[in-house]
Amino acid sequence: MKIAVLGGTGPQGKGLAKRFARAGVSVVVGSRSEPRAQAIAKELSEEVPEGSATIAGLSNADAVRASDEVVILAVPWPGHNATLNGIKDHMAGKILVDIVVPLSENDPKKVEMPPEGSATEAAQAILGPDVPVIGALHNVSAHTLNDLNAAINCDVLVCGNALEPRKKVMALVEKLGVTAYNAGGAQSARCIEAITSILIRINISKAVPFTHAGIKIWAPDHL
Amino acid sequence: MKIAVLGGTGPQGKGLAKRFARAGVSVVVGSRSEPRAQAIAKELSEEVPEGSATIAGLSNADAVRASDEVVILAVPWPGHNATLNGIKDHMAGKILVDIVVPLSENDPKKVEMPPEGSATEAAQAILGPDVPVIGALHNVSAHTLNDLNAAINCDVLVCGNALEPRKKVMALVEKLGVTAYNAGGAQSARCIEAITSILIRINISKAVPFTHAGIKIWAPDHL
Repeated sequence: MKIAVLGGTGPQGKGLAKRFARAGVSVVVGSRSEPRAQAIAKELSEEVPEGSATIAGLSNADAVRASDEVVILAVPWPGHNATLNGIKDHMAGKILVDIVVPLSENDPKKVEMPPEGSATEAAQAILGPDVPVIGALHNVSAHTLNDLNAAINCDVLVCGNALEPRKKVMALVEKLGVTAYNAGGAQSARCIEAITSILIRINISKAVPFTHAGIKIWAPDHL
Repeated sequence: MKIAVLGGTGPQGKGLAKRFARAGVSVVVGSRSEPRAQAIAKELSEEVPEGSATIAGLSNADAVRASDEVVILAVPWPGHNATLNGIKDHMAGKILVDIVVPLSENDPKKVEMPPEGSATEAAQAILGPDVPVIGALHNVSAHTLNDLNAAINCDVLVCGNALEPRKKVMALVEKLGVTAYNAGGAQSARCIEAITSILIRINISKAVPFTHAGIKIWAPDHL
């Protein structure tokens, strides 16, 4: 199994690349710059334990083509739509996993949603109805992702209009040792993406004695 | 301290009335029908342990007038705006705590947000800028609220445009033995209200071995 991680040179993408490689999933890190992708891939390969799957680096479009099926989009929000427009001609037969949160540029404790309602819905509008877009992994802190000694301290809510791709992505995410929940159609991304801005507010609050918070689904018969 | 719980004859309102009374906060249950409010108040008074604060029943407008400051709105979404229009002339000097979730009438696994963005924002638009509206307690299951032997199994995200009322409501909510988090301005209600629809989806999913789920904020240094 080989996945692409676009924006794999940013903190979220790097952490995901390392964790998926460690879990036995080959990763192609994508970047606008192929040399940069290759340099980061080399760096990440040295950070993962022996026996991990390979991490390679390519341009975004080549990374999409090199993936079996799943393409994770992990660029900052300002590059979201441009990156998608750059790869859309190569996305036939692929699944896009959108982890991007439209944080306000002036205040990351808030989101500024696009007219489509969420990043996931904006991606679906750009890629068209034939390419499944699945929102996932929005609420995992980059700090936690990059600390391979730490367990990921949250559950993952997975949404998107197509059910089978949603289940595939849930299974992929669970390779990271987390619990994934089916959160319904793409419209749920309006909520799930915004949870990240609430977590950022909590993390920077002086009233709260911890950082890098995530969320967990919790039930009385689940304690 | 005396609070009003409008829609206190529904499952969410009944559970809150009992739990606040048990925590020493007097409650006036409001309903469109004063006799119904009084009958429910009598019933609830018999269910709370000895030593609890009083639970009385009045019409919605009289319940607002009888409250010291905090008015909790716990009606079903279809009655949200009409109830607010009926009490708005009595809300000067009060704080509205809006716990209502705009669940889709056809599918409670989804929300159908009003044009203002969320129930909390719709309430703020109806009551005007001088009455603080705080969103809270959306994600607590009615089943759990009504089982006085159970601890509330989730954290509470509290939002609203005015900071001091938000802090007052956080302190009030914490009387129920839960942790309340400051989730920012009223716009966060678009997320927090929608979490309930995602929890409903998880609760009715055959893939998940529990029901009555809530959410918890979780951090590595918080385990």
